[in-house]
Amino acid sequence: MEFAHEQHGRHEQGRHERGPVLALVGATGAVGTTMIDIIDGRENVPWSEIRLVASPRSAGKVLRVRGQDITVQALAPEVFDGVDVALFDVPDEVSAQWAPIAAERGAVAVDNSGAFRMDPDVPLVVPEVNADKAAERPKGIISNPNCTTLSMMAAMGALHREFGLEALVVASYQAASGAGQGGIDRLYAELAAVAGREVGVRGGDVAEALAAAGLDAAASPFPAPLALNVVPWAGSLKDDGWSSEELKVRNEARKILGIPDLKVSATCVRVPVVTTHSLAVHATFSREVSVEAARKVLAEQPSIVLRDDPAAGEFPTPADAVGGDPTWVGRIRQALDFPNTLELFVCGDNLRKGAALNTYEIAETVAISL
Amino acid sequence: MEFAHEQHGRHEQGRHERGPVLALVGATGAVGTTMIDIIDGRENVPWSEIRLVASPRSAGKVLRVRGQDITVQALAPEVFDGVDVALFDVPDEVSAQWAPIAAERGAVAVDNSGAFRMDPDVPLVVPEVNADKAAERPKGIISNPNCTTLSMMAAMGALHREFGLEALVVASYQAASGAGQGGIDRLYAELAAVAGREVGVRGGDVAEALAAAGLDAAASPFPAPLALNVVPWAGSLKDDGWSSEELKVRNEARKILGIPDLKVSATCVRVPVVTTHSLAVHATFSREVSVEAARKVLAEQPSIVLRDDPAAGEFPTPADAVGGDPTWVGRIRQALDFPNTLELFVCGDNLRKGAALNTYEIAETVAISL
Repeated sequence: MEFAHEQHGRHEQGRHERGPVLALVGATGAVGTTMIDIIDGRENVPWSEIRLVASPRSAGKVLRVRGQDITVQALAPEVFDGVDVALFDVPDEVSAQWAPIAAERGAVAVDNSGAFRMDPDVPLVVPEVNADKAAERPKGIISNPNCTTLSMMAAMGALHREFGLEALVVASYQAASGAGQGGIDRLYAELAAVAGREVGVRGGDVAEALAAAGLDAAASPFPAPLALNVVPWAGSLKDDGWSSEELKVRNEARKILGIPDLKVSATCVRVPVVTTHSLAVHATFSREVSVEAARKVLAEQPSIVLRDDPAAGEFPTPADAVGGDPTWVGRIRQALDFPNTLELFVCGDNLRKGAALNTYEIAETVAISL
Repeated sequence: MEFAHEQHGRHEQGRHERGPVLALVGATGAVGTTMIDIIDGRENVPWSEIRLVASPRSAGKVLRVRGQDITVQALAPEVFDGVDVALFDVPDEVSAQWAPIAAERGAVAVDNSGAFRMDPDVPLVVPEVNADKAAERPKGIISNPNCTTLSMMAAMGALHREFGLEALVVASYQAASGAGQGGIDRLYAELAAVAGREVGVRGGDVAEALAAAGLDAAASPFPAPLALNVVPWAGSLKDDGWSSEELKVRNEARKILGIPDLKVSATCVRVPVVTTHSLAVHATFSREVSVEAARKVLAEQPSIVLRDDPAAGEFPTPADAVGGDPTWVGRIRQALDFPNTLELFVCGDNLRKGAALNTYEIAETVAISL
């Protein structure tokens, strides 16, 4: 399993010369599966060994990574011995318990849960925006942002550097896979229940069609039907009617961009898309902006695809962005009635840049510094 | 066909004593069909006669309205003779030609196209907001607003009266039926093509699945796949990258609310919902607002259903609002970083309040004044 060794032809003389060891915790989930896709797709990886870790239920499964069969291990303190970087994609409470254990055993834990994101001693990193923060990790933990926030960060980071971001009004179009494999499965099941039937035109019949197909509303990860519907809710209820997802967009954008007083209002809405979150963004800057200048800045970003030619029918959609690494940006307009304000539409694969890819990019950023 | 006569038991002594005559132009389209549903559903209607009018292609069809069979007539000047109110739901260019002919023959034309909405001599009416404007119709034409604008007007009109509206930032979640019956048919066909297949997770395969099912992209009323996707485009391209739909939201909201300098930025996005448009609205007022005060104002509106109890899982969705007359409003939050600003989520059936219902309500407003 000496990937770095095999690829670079180095001699095995010690762990660091062989390359660092990576552990992937939550390897069998929606994001974990995407993580393996990403690792498989890289030309080179720095790791001498990759360990796959999951719940005891998934332990013993064999997954193929870069041509090698790897047996999934059950989560236990010992799996982190000798690990340099441990990626976590597990529920908040699992991360809260296990990321510190990984750190204690000497690994840098890169965590995709919400457990540590707002901890002042844990950096929240988007490598294009604030890679330097990855080195400041007093707890040995680095957090990966929420997927909705992440979808716009590469674009907003680039525009902020140029024009000085002051305020964001955001409405999201969030994919089912934001709720994990269970969200994907539910959307497919709901679509099968409504497809080929004349439902959705008159009242109540989407819910009826789902019930008729034996799809229990209480078993859904979503609080309302998602097929032929949109659901203005994601996450849990926080103070004053805000959802946790909406507050994450505000708090995480402030932390990542380093603008503690950034004004943010977000409305988070689930849509019947499998994968890729989209955001309609109304962004106000301290300096004068133009569509042309914004396009120039965005076009220079390696992680952004600018698709903004409505005359040619070109604008970003989730079906375009899904499965790829870049964030797609388009529909850039100067607000007609709001000074220094741009409208734009952003699509980012929530399992890739929104989760697995950014987490992995943090891991490689850490690996370089080891 | 003397509806008013039959229902009220009046003697037939002359046209106005019998009740006015209604013509419905575009009777066989998506909105026309909904219009007939609405007329069927009314306890009483003021009309002594209802004429159904459509293109020559649909002429001769027999449709049942309030228990009577009515033969669809082909559009011709003579069909308007003796008509008091003529409702038009036809393409812009058909309205532009025929609404003035109806007016010339003595009818009040109530038009649901975009042909006359911004004409200063044509009122743009939402009865709950500006019913008084229906009497000022120098051209004999009254316009019905665009469905996207309409979806939020009952709510914004009520909030404006109380708090003084200054600015709107809007992101839409627009249904396929906004593009007419062709839009509905296309969405169903696309859903059938993707249902039961594992598509939409990885790149490009929604488009592939549609192509494999023989669905020609060029034949779609939408500029991209709509199943398992969202499409940030509606209408035609206007100056500086704005879509016609987005500018309608701005211009029509200003005209209906009577606020010529209302600040508006809209992003219009099509979603895979059959019927009912939703809007995420960020609304700034000149006076202090609170969630409680806003809820009180909205709860008093007969045409609004307030569904705003996230703790109980209650918020508006298109599947709830579809098929009904009211606008559903919820997710009301005070913006954390923007003074005097509320966030809210609004759902309105785009074929009913967004088109047929409001048009019909204008017609009844006119009928009362005849």
